[in-house]
Amino acid sequence: MKVYGDVWSGNCYKLKLALTQLGRPFEWVPVDIMKRESRTPEFLAKNPNGRIPVLELDDGTCLAESNAILWYLAEGTALVPGDRLGRARALQWMFFEQYSHEPYVATSRYIVRYLGSPPERRAELAARQAPGYAALGVMEGHLAAQDWFAGGNYSIADIALYAYTHCAGEGGFDLGRFPAIRDWLARVESRPLYLPMG
Amino acid sequence: MKVYGDVWSGNCYKLKLALTQLGRPFEWVPVDIMKRESRTPEFLAKNPNGRIPVLELDDGTCLAESNAILWYLAEGTALVPGDRLGRARALQWMFFEQYSHEPYVATSRYIVRYLGSPPERRAELAARQAPGYAALGVMEGHLAAQDWFAGGNYSIADIALYAYTHCAGEGGFDLGRFPAIRDWLARVESRPLYLPMG
Repeated sequence: MKVYGDVWSGNCYKLKLALTQLGRPFEWVPVDIMKRESRTPEFLAKNPNGRIPVLELDDGTCLAESNAILWYLAEGTALVPGDRLGRARALQWMFFEQYSHEPYVATSRYIVRYLGSPPERRAELAARQAPGYAALGVMEGHLAAQDWFAGGNYSIADIALYAYTHCAGEGGFDLGRFPAIRDWLARVESRPLYLPMG
Repeated sequence: MKVYGDVWSGNCYKLKLALTQLGRPFEWVPVDIMKRESRTPEFLAKNPNGRIPVLELDDGTCLAESNAILWYLAEGTALVPGDRLGRARALQWMFFEQYSHEPYVATSRYIVRYLGSPPERRAELAARQAPGYAALGVMEGHLAAQDWFAGGNYSIADIALYAYTHCAGEGGFDLGRFPAIRDWLARVESRPLYLPMG
């Protein structure tokens, strides 16, 4: 299998971490989004939506959307809850991640880290703070009562939310306000075969 | 089961359509987001993220995120592909829907229909046109070659994308440019037990 991605993208890091913890060999193909390499005709043939990561199977089949790829890789393993409600709960948190968390927490980091906080994006950056903190607050509430996001165990829902939460500070978010999130980050980092971003 | 929702919300309509087509009885509990009924302490106990729809099971367990609820309801039925790649493909399109489609196509409709296009939101409305059309273009490309989004059959991925695509015109999008989407809308509308929004 090949993963087309950027090692500093949280969405791509999700796959690297899951593949490593699942013991699945893979080839990493670097894609530089700042050079618009995800918008070339060759790349658009793999993902017409022009986004990384993309998983390419040995027969050339391509899958897009980081959380759908996580599901593909982990279905039937210990990283996906074994019961119907647990699986739905994992997906609930993964859709929360893409809709209520990533557009604020990850995009703020993108504006700071990739674009260098240009003056014309600063109002937008400021506007992303409140919904980003709201998402972190929802996570904090859950983690105050439970160790993991779904099914009582570490799962792909934790991997999906860890990816951009652990580096939220790079986008200007202060995790000092969220003790339960910080404890959970430490739990994720103590899992076997944990691998830092990069 | 109870569904907390608004009959004119596409995210809520997804559940009504799927439950009807699956032959599952349910009680509909209206929630008026314009009256902030999704932000009351009672509602936040059901979904701390303060969004509709919410599915409440008979034992009081609550699930949020429309597409995760679709998965919960349809897992193991003909509305979810029977093969691993098909399931991941359905999820790929459902994550695409929430990340690349809903924030533009659905939010534009919300600004027009729920808020009445107030002058202070018009620049934002205009800015949502290009990414909304890009998402519709990605769908058009897929549907030019295939009848359904995942696994070769009508599935929850079609339900998820139908919800806000069929009423995209209300947000100012011209579906006249997308013949394959229009044919697909007609196919969805000819499915047994199809039910219009509202």
